[in-house]
Amino acid sequence: MGMTHIHLIGIGTGNPDHLTRQAEHAILAADLILLPEKGDNKADLADIRRQIIDRIRPDAPIAPFTMPVRDESLPYALRVDAWHDSIARLWAEAIAVHGAPENVALLVWGDPSLYDSTLRIAARLEPVPQISVVPGITSLQALTAAHAIPLNTINGPVTITTGRQLRDHGWPDRAESVYVKQDGVCSYQTVSKPNLHIWWGAYLGMPEQVLASGPVESVGETIIAKRAAARQRHGWIMDTYLLRRL
Amino acid sequence: MGMTHIHLIGIGTGNPDHLTRQAEHAILAADLILLPEKGDNKADLADIRRQIIDRIRPDAPIAPFTMPVRDESLPYALRVDAWHDSIARLWAEAIAVHGAPENVALLVWGDPSLYDSTLRIAARLEPVPQISVVPGITSLQALTAAHAIPLNTINGPVTITTGRQLRDHGWPDRAESVYVKQDGVCSYQTVSKPNLHIWWGAYLGMPEQVLASGPVESVGETIIAKRAAARQRHGWIMDTYLLRRL
Repeated sequence: MGMTHIHLIGIGTGNPDHLTRQAEHAILAADLILLPEKGDNKADLADIRRQIIDRIRPDAPIAPFTMPVRDESLPYALRVDAWHDSIARLWAEAIAVHGAPENVALLVWGDPSLYDSTLRIAARLEPVPQISVVPGITSLQALTAAHAIPLNTINGPVTITTGRQLRDHGWPDRAESVYVKQDGVCSYQTVSKPNLHIWWGAYLGMPEQVLASGPVESVGETIIAKRAAARQRHGWIMDTYLLRRL
Repeated sequence: MGMTHIHLIGIGTGNPDHLTRQAEHAILAADLILLPEKGDNKADLADIRRQIIDRIRPDAPIAPFTMPVRDESLPYALRVDAWHDSIARLWAEAIAVHGAPENVALLVWGDPSLYDSTLRIAARLEPVPQISVVPGITSLQALTAAHAIPLNTINGPVTITTGRQLRDHGWPDRAESVYVKQDGVCSYQTVSKPNLHIWWGAYLGMPEQVLASGPVESVGETIIAKRAAARQRHGWIMDTYLLRRL
């Protein structure tokens, strides 16, 4: 039995046209594709993964698996750790059941490097597999593309952070542009508003895409309302935003 | 004469397989493609742009133009400003010469949002054109993919910055991961070294790709030597790196 080679394939933010040729080649070359299903209440997203595979390789060898549920009774770090272990076990089982093929692929939302766990889960397999990454379009690029804006000011720094970090630590020191991911509660409200501009987007790259931008003082409330309405309508939401002091 | 619609197409970092389907569609749909030539001493890069176009659309309507030279006698901000004006004038001339077609495209290294000037140049055209952006794989994703590493620690912030910012302001406050672009002088040397880890890459995604990683104390000097040798060999270099305190 040879060494497993895990290919983590970035597929972009939900627009099938975000796919790169490199991602297509990796999907075509896979001996097995692990496909997470359910467990995240985002059926649309699971469907998009399947549609992407079907369009490129209708007879692709797919091993669906159900994502485990996080044990919310555990403290955060332990909870994530236990959850990654469970997922790694499911991957190992699926790989074994399918005869331990060499090239095993996973389709990853956005890019495997940015606020994604698949690299850390792959590293838990035993023996440790070879790991290759195919870069993908992130929500960061999908957001700036949708608004046709630069991410940075001229030669200025950019901070990529989470809603929690922004709430707990405030505006990062010397930051000019702050890109916020994983924020379920519109944490920009906690930042002092004068001259603060926001570019917000949800369902980026998808037909459902919603955008809003302007001074936080003017559009901050509008975004909260749009976000709530969209989440209600679709049953889930993925959104992100860029803040800049102008 | 209708309104000009400028399409800025991110093409990734030099690997033709970074191209997305969306980028291919935009190249196919363009009435005119503005192609910068020479002026940057990076003939290989100009060639890659042409190769990408030729592979998708050998009969593409191309308007080559020679990039103007920056006036190094001016202070930095003025110099950049004057340079952007000159480029915008060249675009306007090329568009006029070709009968002012509606859909005008430019192929942009990486992604048009990240340390790139084309969005700012396009905004200088008169009348202001409609601008669309096609996102592309950035060197940031190409670097983390090549090393198969996450950009961020779990839920941790990431700072994207330039070599100059790192030299002038040191390690950003509360930063965990710092991604550095536009650094010709290995500015990581100015950062205090204990526990500082570096993942470096040059010519990312290209056949010439060179990588190195490790504690800065061990590999810092090696990278300086590798960088100088590669630059000597190719006549130019594009490189970037991620720093993290471990």
